[in-house]
Amino acid sequence: MPKILLMNAGSSSVKWKLFEIENEKIVAKGLVERMLMPESTFEISYNDQKYSKIIDNLTYEDAAQMIIEKIQTLNITTLDDIKAVGHRVVAGGQKFKQATLITRENLKNIEDLSDHAPLHNPMEAKYIELMQTVMPQTPQYAVFDSQFFTDMPEVNAIFSLPYEYTEKFGIRRYGEHGISHAYISKQAAKLLGKDLNKLKMVTLHLGSGSSISAEKDGKAFDSSMGFTPLTGVTMGTRSGDIDPSLVPFLMKKLGKSASEIIEIFNTKSGLLGISGVSSDMRDIIKNRAKDKRCGLAVDVFVNRIVKYVGSYFAELGGLDVIVFSGGIGENNSNIRAEIAHKLACLGVLLDEKRNANTKEGVISQEASPITAVVVPTNEELAMIQQIKEII
Amino acid sequence: MPKILLMNAGSSSVKWKLFEIENEKIVAKGLVERMLMPESTFEISYNDQKYSKIIDNLTYEDAAQMIIEKIQTLNITTLDDIKAVGHRVVAGGQKFKQATLITRENLKNIEDLSDHAPLHNPMEAKYIELMQTVMPQTPQYAVFDSQFFTDMPEVNAIFSLPYEYTEKFGIRRYGEHGISHAYISKQAAKLLGKDLNKLKMVTLHLGSGSSISAEKDGKAFDSSMGFTPLTGVTMGTRSGDIDPSLVPFLMKKLGKSASEIIEIFNTKSGLLGISGVSSDMRDIIKNRAKDKRCGLAVDVFVNRIVKYVGSYFAELGGLDVIVFSGGIGENNSNIRAEIAHKLACLGVLLDEKRNANTKEGVISQEASPITAVVVPTNEELAMIQQIKEII
Repeated sequence: MPKILLMNAGSSSVKWKLFEIENEKIVAKGLVERMLMPESTFEISYNDQKYSKIIDNLTYEDAAQMIIEKIQTLNITTLDDIKAVGHRVVAGGQKFKQATLITRENLKNIEDLSDHAPLHNPMEAKYIELMQTVMPQTPQYAVFDSQFFTDMPEVNAIFSLPYEYTEKFGIRRYGEHGISHAYISKQAAKLLGKDLNKLKMVTLHLGSGSSISAEKDGKAFDSSMGFTPLTGVTMGTRSGDIDPSLVPFLMKKLGKSASEIIEIFNTKSGLLGISGVSSDMRDIIKNRAKDKRCGLAVDVFVNRIVKYVGSYFAELGGLDVIVFSGGIGENNSNIRAEIAHKLACLGVLLDEKRNANTKEGVISQEASPITAVVVPTNEELAMIQQIKEII
Repeated sequence: MPKILLMNAGSSSVKWKLFEIENEKIVAKGLVERMLMPESTFEISYNDQKYSKIIDNLTYEDAAQMIIEKIQTLNITTLDDIKAVGHRVVAGGQKFKQATLITRENLKNIEDLSDHAPLHNPMEAKYIELMQTVMPQTPQYAVFDSQFFTDMPEVNAIFSLPYEYTEKFGIRRYGEHGISHAYISKQAAKLLGKDLNKLKMVTLHLGSGSSISAEKDGKAFDSSMGFTPLTGVTMGTRSGDIDPSLVPFLMKKLGKSASEIIEIFNTKSGLLGISGVSSDMRDIIKNRAKDKRCGLAVDVFVNRIVKYVGSYFAELGGLDVIVFSGGIGENNSNIRAEIAHKLACLGVLLDEKRNANTKEGVISQEASPITAVVVPTNEELAMIQQIKEII
């Protein structure tokens, strides 16, 4: 049975899923974590079975090798049956407007776009190379998380910088979680039986990375993500919007370089930075009542989202649908309720019962001027569909 | 007749006004421009008369000396009659929550707060010292542009940074144009015959520097200005909100330091950066139809304001009054109309005729859910009133 292998690489982990092409069914999935650290973990789930192993300091190369070896020795698939490997790539810049076959030149372009996603693109490029090494006969494809946003209206896309820099260096909002926003906006329209191309929509992808996107007439209209995935709302470890004057200020105070300060904004800020407890909303909510900083972290998280929705309502000239998705958006009905209650002034009237019980579907009242929906995101399915189109 | 001299110092200019204390009437005002440049200009207006002189490379010291000398030799006032000198200071940090008598210690504190307003505080501190030198017997007072915002709710004031830094370095939104926002919000309530303490309000101070502020129950609730006056909406030369990751990116591309990049964000960006023509909205509007970049600059200017109003509408849970002020807000009825039309979705229904003809007063329709008002700002009057209270 012909299959597609999807890779999602991070700095110390890699997630993968193996799909049957025809029926888009997952036949196996795996996760490698804590690479280059003591007790790296290697896991595969398939047919209700599980294979796992703990190995010290597993390298990226070993991990790639081991994935390919195990899916064969565990009789999950033959290599021949894997017709394509798809890679999620965060930043495609202005270069990549759709899913793309990897060539030597495209790979170089992905590496060169690392300025736009310093935490993501270098690792993703590395994994493309590794998979080329272990599966030299199999074509590799990249699906870009930015591609949904490449045609955003210029007035929303640019920053108010000298226009020469905007043009010369390709400085603009590149958006993020585009695979997700594109998928959940389409899915929401389908669920509601409405024409996507006639809706004003705001989609909330709320997870450890969170982004808010505005869609108009079926196209991306605005994104909270900036030149990099640092900006927008408060995230697990990312600060979201912040005064850039703090870069030289903190360089002086902390004796660090500009890049080190940006790393603090990316990895030690957000919910983790405010709470001091965790980057995970579940941990923070638990401590909310007894820990002032956890309470503050939740309040800031909700506030920034509410503000973004308000700003998009105004620039869209009203709103038909608001979509909750991502780990927090799909699973945390309390946070959804807090956000929705504050948006009552815009016309989001929550149905408490629906909100408490819905995994996928409408959570607003029948009479609500703005329809609120939960849509579980499925980035892999969206990627498979894109790769199938160009195979 | 006892008087107060008010100083407003910039990097190459200083504006001043001399007020009679009792009736708050201006008896003279002056402007020194192009200091330390060829053809510095020195001007004084008084009693329908004008004194002006052009001098090459006028120093700050000479300018201060000359102001004091000329107001005596032109018989505008005796030195004895000047009972106080008031200085507008942009950043008061968390230290200064109200107008303050200058002591040696306070002056040092103002200098130390230069991180919050690198373009402003150093010059303002310098002019306080200069005026102490030329008028050693006269008490000097500072009125802070940040003081209106010092008690903003913490959830709106902080950035999502490690909380240790927030506390240790006093990192937060300090707001700006606070003297103006406080004045125009009070004035708007008075104009409408409403209780300021029961209004949800957004005030737009739109000039070469622009800021948007939210007020609830008569107090500052949020501000578009950040740790420094760089953030928020697009300004004459300031970028407003921008991805801080661009600091190290542009350092590398342009071979500049972090502070030099922030200076580009402050002085070469905004309307000037996008249009390439001017930082002055009047120049840009003139070229709007024929120059694409001027058109884009106006569109971005309007868009960012609309987004901020939308975000404040949402976090305030609705809005009673929107106030236009500042050079652009008071005088440019076309820009007001563009902003107001986009805010129709929130409930701002503009009365076109009123808007075209109003210098001070309501510009929305009787039935408009949100009342739109124009209020000419008068920062000096607000400063005089604050100094009178503590003299």
